[in-house]
Amino acid sequence: MLADYVESERDRIVGVLFDWLRIPSISADPSRSASVRQSAEFAADLLRGAGMDHAEIVETGGAPAVYADWLHAGPSAPTALVYGHHDVQPVDPLDEWAQPPFEPVLVDGECRARGAVDDKGQLLFQIEAARGLLQRHGSLPVNLKFLIEGEEEIGSPHFEKLLVTERERLACDVVVVSDTTMWGPQVPSTCVGLRGLVAFDVTIRTAAADLHSGSFGGSVPNSAHVVADLVSSLHDSDGRVSLPGFYDDVRPLTAAEERSLSLLPFDEEDWKRKAGVRRLEGEAGRSTLERVWTRPTCEVVGITAGYGGEGMKTVVPGNANVKVTFRLVPDQDPERVTEAFDGWLATRVPDGVTVEVQQVGAVAPALTDADHPAVGALCRAIERVWGQAPLLTREGGSGPEEALGRVLDVPVLYLGVGLPDDRYHAPNERMVMDQFWKGLLAAGELWGEVARAHG
Amino acid sequence: MLADYVESERDRIVGVLFDWLRIPSISADPSRSASVRQSAEFAADLLRGAGMDHAEIVETGGAPAVYADWLHAGPSAPTALVYGHHDVQPVDPLDEWAQPPFEPVLVDGECRARGAVDDKGQLLFQIEAARGLLQRHGSLPVNLKFLIEGEEEIGSPHFEKLLVTERERLACDVVVVSDTTMWGPQVPSTCVGLRGLVAFDVTIRTAAADLHSGSFGGSVPNSAHVVADLVSSLHDSDGRVSLPGFYDDVRPLTAAEERSLSLLPFDEEDWKRKAGVRRLEGEAGRSTLERVWTRPTCEVVGITAGYGGEGMKTVVPGNANVKVTFRLVPDQDPERVTEAFDGWLATRVPDGVTVEVQQVGAVAPALTDADHPAVGALCRAIERVWGQAPLLTREGGSGPEEALGRVLDVPVLYLGVGLPDDRYHAPNERMVMDQFWKGLLAAGELWGEVARAHG
Repeated sequence: MLADYVESERDRIVGVLFDWLRIPSISADPSRSASVRQSAEFAADLLRGAGMDHAEIVETGGAPAVYADWLHAGPSAPTALVYGHHDVQPVDPLDEWAQPPFEPVLVDGECRARGAVDDKGQLLFQIEAARGLLQRHGSLPVNLKFLIEGEEEIGSPHFEKLLVTERERLACDVVVVSDTTMWGPQVPSTCVGLRGLVAFDVTIRTAAADLHSGSFGGSVPNSAHVVADLVSSLHDSDGRVSLPGFYDDVRPLTAAEERSLSLLPFDEEDWKRKAGVRRLEGEAGRSTLERVWTRPTCEVVGITAGYGGEGMKTVVPGNANVKVTFRLVPDQDPERVTEAFDGWLATRVPDGVTVEVQQVGAVAPALTDADHPAVGALCRAIERVWGQAPLLTREGGSGPEEALGRVLDVPVLYLGVGLPDDRYHAPNERMVMDQFWKGLLAAGELWGEVARAHG
Repeated sequence: MLADYVESERDRIVGVLFDWLRIPSISADPSRSASVRQSAEFAADLLRGAGMDHAEIVETGGAPAVYADWLHAGPSAPTALVYGHHDVQPVDPLDEWAQPPFEPVLVDGECRARGAVDDKGQLLFQIEAARGLLQRHGSLPVNLKFLIEGEEEIGSPHFEKLLVTERERLACDVVVVSDTTMWGPQVPSTCVGLRGLVAFDVTIRTAAADLHSGSFGGSVPNSAHVVADLVSSLHDSDGRVSLPGFYDDVRPLTAAEERSLSLLPFDEEDWKRKAGVRRLEGEAGRSTLERVWTRPTCEVVGITAGYGGEGMKTVVPGNANVKVTFRLVPDQDPERVTEAFDGWLATRVPDGVTVEVQQVGAVAPALTDADHPAVGALCRAIERVWGQAPLLTREGGSGPEEALGRVLDVPVLYLGVGLPDDRYHAPNERMVMDQFWKGLLAAGELWGEVARAHG
């Protein structure tokens, strides 16, 4: 049992978490590349300190990953691979943070900082669980490997290549991901699927430069108008994505999946409160959970056109940028969606207007078979810590989990303790520390359950 | 006749122009406020040297203006007020200038510097015409007043208050503005109208903060989508502005105005080349000149929503900003358009989405009656110098001329000699000196014509 380990090591562990969170490892920002590397080295040091045989930086062609292993459980014991990421999201808008994003604080039982829950905090409970078990028992019931990525927040551009290259060293019986959320602190749950993602950076150019709106306004194309027309026509009046054929590959839910969805105590008002919105909307004829977990969507994540500063400038914007993302569900394929988007754009942009499209990230959707014995092992571990069996959920987000399961050909389990209002990717991201400590205990339970299920 | 004055004073006048242009009187740049004041003092000295009775700095609450007068033409002679501005535009992008913007040079018959045509050069020919007439004849055929503003390039924020406060001292029979362009060096023209402008800063809020598009995407409103729907619906499929009643107050062109427009040698390919665009578009059934001069328009000058930095961020933007401008024509009223815009917005924004609108600037359209005798006087003065009668044009931009005409209750004449390629507001601004000297002669002719028309 790790409970006494947690009691005696609590302050040190919080200190380690704070130190890691102080490193601004924003993978999207090229000027932060030294910090991303520093974060990788920090993780490697932690893994060595936890008692791994071996921990090293793995170069990927992009930001560095970290690999570590402990392989003394014996040849008949199963091997588990823990996956997570040490890079974090950008922090803008900075002025919406209650305190600086890389100066972690502990307030009301929450650790607040960029990366607290996504994903340094969730990795740290895994590392500390291994450290505690090795410190108290001298061994683990499974052979344990860690793979910690540094480019998850920019769509894992080098990750699949890394998996393929390192396939032998990464070989395992099960992957455990700690990067997801639970339904609520009193309603433990585990995820069985993630949506896929394909994202595009689109630049519209209507003129060589911004034009004076007095001299030319009303007679020339306006990039802000063109980009607005595009965005406005991405959805039809039923809230469905307008790309031709977009829904053709969507696999219908099974009866068991529909029943599992209906078991969740979904409260629409609570969902609105968590989101901080006053209305819900989306694809017609679908529930909110269907919309975010089992249905594909299109979200524009940014529009930038013309003048955005103080006051006013009388220009006709000569160019505009829009970032468009599509979340995908089984069996949609990012490359087929890319073709559909390119074709759709070509028909929508007027002659004489230039459009450049760049695909910036593609992740296929992931789905774990809920009947696999390893899922049962995870459910028992969670039940032992939270006092009740977890419900089965999905996540609307996307990650490299699909590639992990596919390339390594193993089931992917999700031991995630984030909560829906932890402000992933947003200002004032937090980790509820009670969830953190429970996660640490559950990770300890999990390895015993996995070993038993394998035996 | 001023021709011999020009011949004998040419070098001195160019020297004066260069000295004035060396003063970097950028009103938009607070760090240049001392230069703006220096420029005002330079103008006051010029006016005294030209023989005005009186020239003084006028404090406005912002950058200083200059007032001067010569009032000895007698009580039966008309009074003319020359308006111009001594402040200049910012100079960025600096690296696109062939030489430093405040080190004037004379190349190929052009004076190149910031402010050469907008507006120091055009004011100087007015001041030198008065100086020449007073030097050669000892008097002027009209009572002459000068009002030289120091904040035109930042939207004349204190100008109307100045006009109202100084209304008695500024009383006149006609205002003459020298700040506009002619159709071409061989095609003299005079402007009879400017469009008005009303601008809005609109902020949309759909959520308290940006949301993770994986967690919430597809179930909540997206500010980027809302703002795109708004912008997209500002125009109908005929390129007309969608606000109810927007065109109700637009005064149709007279037959004379239509004929005047049709006389201009408009070249669509040349227009596209100047704009740097590959297509023209706008209100259906209207020519390009109608679209930019005589029709009201709506141009979005900026959209900012969500993430606009490098790479990608997977958020649902919680807020968005759009800056919307309307150019207005007679008899549209900025306040009525503001009411229409507010009403339109209220019907377009979904329940549960917050919208804040701020009016940031309102200028009414200006139109001079082409049949007024003073316009005839101006046309004769131009014809005498250029050898042909001027065509009547308008400008699509907006300025303080409307307030001049309205507050002082007099017709506004435009003796402007700029050319369309003079790079107003852009790098390598120039004044074609042949136009400058002709402007000087035409100003001299103008006062005699105005006196005769008045008599």
